[in-house]
Amino acid sequence: MTRPDEDAVLARFFRPLARHPAALGLADDAAHLNGHVYTKDMLVAGQHFFPDDDPALIARKALRVNLSDLAAKGAEPVGYLFGLGLPPDWSEAFLARLTEGLKADNEAFNLALLGGDTVKSPVLMLSVTMIGRAREKTPLRTGAKPGDVIAVTGTLGDGAFGLMVRQGGLSALSAEHRAFLLDRYLLPQPRLALGAALSQHASASMDVSDGLVQDLERLLKASGCAGTVDASLLPLSEAGKAAVASEGLTKTLTGGDDYEILFTCTEQAFAALQTLPLPFPLTRIGAVQEGSGLTLLNAPALTAKGWQSV
Amino acid sequence: MTRPDEDAVLARFFRPLARHPAALGLADDAAHLNGHVYTKDMLVAGQHFFPDDDPALIARKALRVNLSDLAAKGAEPVGYLFGLGLPPDWSEAFLARLTEGLKADNEAFNLALLGGDTVKSPVLMLSVTMIGRAREKTPLRTGAKPGDVIAVTGTLGDGAFGLMVRQGGLSALSAEHRAFLLDRYLLPQPRLALGAALSQHASASMDVSDGLVQDLERLLKASGCAGTVDASLLPLSEAGKAAVASEGLTKTLTGGDDYEILFTCTEQAFAALQTLPLPFPLTRIGAVQEGSGLTLLNAPALTAKGWQSV
Repeated sequence: MTRPDEDAVLARFFRPLARHPAALGLADDAAHLNGHVYTKDMLVAGQHFFPDDDPALIARKALRVNLSDLAAKGAEPVGYLFGLGLPPDWSEAFLARLTEGLKADNEAFNLALLGGDTVKSPVLMLSVTMIGRAREKTPLRTGAKPGDVIAVTGTLGDGAFGLMVRQGGLSALSAEHRAFLLDRYLLPQPRLALGAALSQHASASMDVSDGLVQDLERLLKASGCAGTVDASLLPLSEAGKAAVASEGLTKTLTGGDDYEILFTCTEQAFAALQTLPLPFPLTRIGAVQEGSGLTLLNAPALTAKGWQSV
Repeated sequence: MTRPDEDAVLARFFRPLARHPAALGLADDAAHLNGHVYTKDMLVAGQHFFPDDDPALIARKALRVNLSDLAAKGAEPVGYLFGLGLPPDWSEAFLARLTEGLKADNEAFNLALLGGDTVKSPVLMLSVTMIGRAREKTPLRTGAKPGDVIAVTGTLGDGAFGLMVRQGGLSALSAEHRAFLLDRYLLPQPRLALGAALSQHASASMDVSDGLVQDLERLLKASGCAGTVDASLLPLSEAGKAAVASEGLTKTLTGGDDYEILFTCTEQAFAALQTLPLPFPLTRIGAVQEGSGLTLLNAPALTAKGWQSV
């Protein structure tokens, strides 16, 4: 394909339109205006979920991928506008189940449904604009400094392996491991518990949604730095380890659908963050350096860096 | 079809989730939070525009239908998040033209592109969340009072007739009239010039996008009032008069795509509004009364009340 990729589309067509400082150069999956952070992620059937997934889980994923962006910006969720494209065969039972999913996560994350729009669409499509209160500082992609630690929350690769399970793969894994990975694919866990500390300590931050390598390269480029990641340090779940044993590390490096937070901070800040009582691990995976580009140690050769959205 | 209509979907599935006061009960095409007004309208190819319309006009229409909602709430545009579902056959030329349209209206309305998302989609789909600064008062749908004037901006029916032109109809009209109506369909004119005065004077306000009868019934129901409209008073453009001569008043009453503002206010307020130097007319079309329901005088029998979005 000779068409520009996602980053090139942004740079060439949209960034020239986004000169307002609130747009953060469209580099941050978020806008920052009047003390609030805004994110917008769209999910389309066949691209971001399967048309026959549980509608409640589809709805919750649509909220959670946006919440993950808020978490990475250290923001506190407030509410959202919900756009819904309904396919021709929608039923009341479908809509009841979809809105049950919204309700569950409204309660789980103290979210208000603020408004929205419902239209006819060839396929199910969800478009969420999430609004959060910014904390004192909003960590951007641009703030990484040479000498900083590169770290991630949680475990990587589970979402991509979960997609394989959803497609009937990884059948050699235990039922328990398959169920764990599938859940990680279907229901991301936005790392909001880290928000306040990220605001205080992170020099740069973003969520990993399009694959660690691609997303970290974006962060390093935005910060004008180089980085090195030791793939042997990537945090893996038990199920992820079982999948890596047969599949290798490629999915963990480039698979996407992680919805973990990738951040940089000083050594002192990382030490402070490690003392926090969090329901997920924080793992140092590398270091920021002067220069440009990402060096991967102990990693397989990669043919792609991550998910391409267009 | 036995499925619930748009209003029933809202009432049954979404309104129970929208208890936050900022959601305005999902009755207002807008949310009101922290001194800002938020609107979200989605446009899908084949539903809201033709796939072969000029991409610049599609983009501008997506912004303008949202600006029309802001205008009706008396708000001042600030910026927007732009969601784009790109069909498989998208080209760089298409994207260049689409973003030219965004740029033109960013400049025309002093809008900032704040963020967004681009995804693959079976058909072209645009999802805009528009943010405006609320003025001192935000006129809602709920404030109409018995004795109020019912009034509209501009002229009605042009958008619906323009759609007929776009579909090859109204061929007996002059080329000039057809071009006027087509432009009214393709490029709505958000009535932002009325915003500050609406904030000051209107008791209730909304934009007419789904047909005058349907939208006015919604406003009256939200306000707990009845109303009477004299269809002989509906403001028509010269081209609209030519179209009504052959087609009758049905499209003017129910066609939708007007993007005019429908508002109620006291007699004194209406007199004050009429003294304003505005680039479009304000026309009294009826009156608010005690009770419920809408009475139409001098109107044809209607088989539908307006556009159904689902």
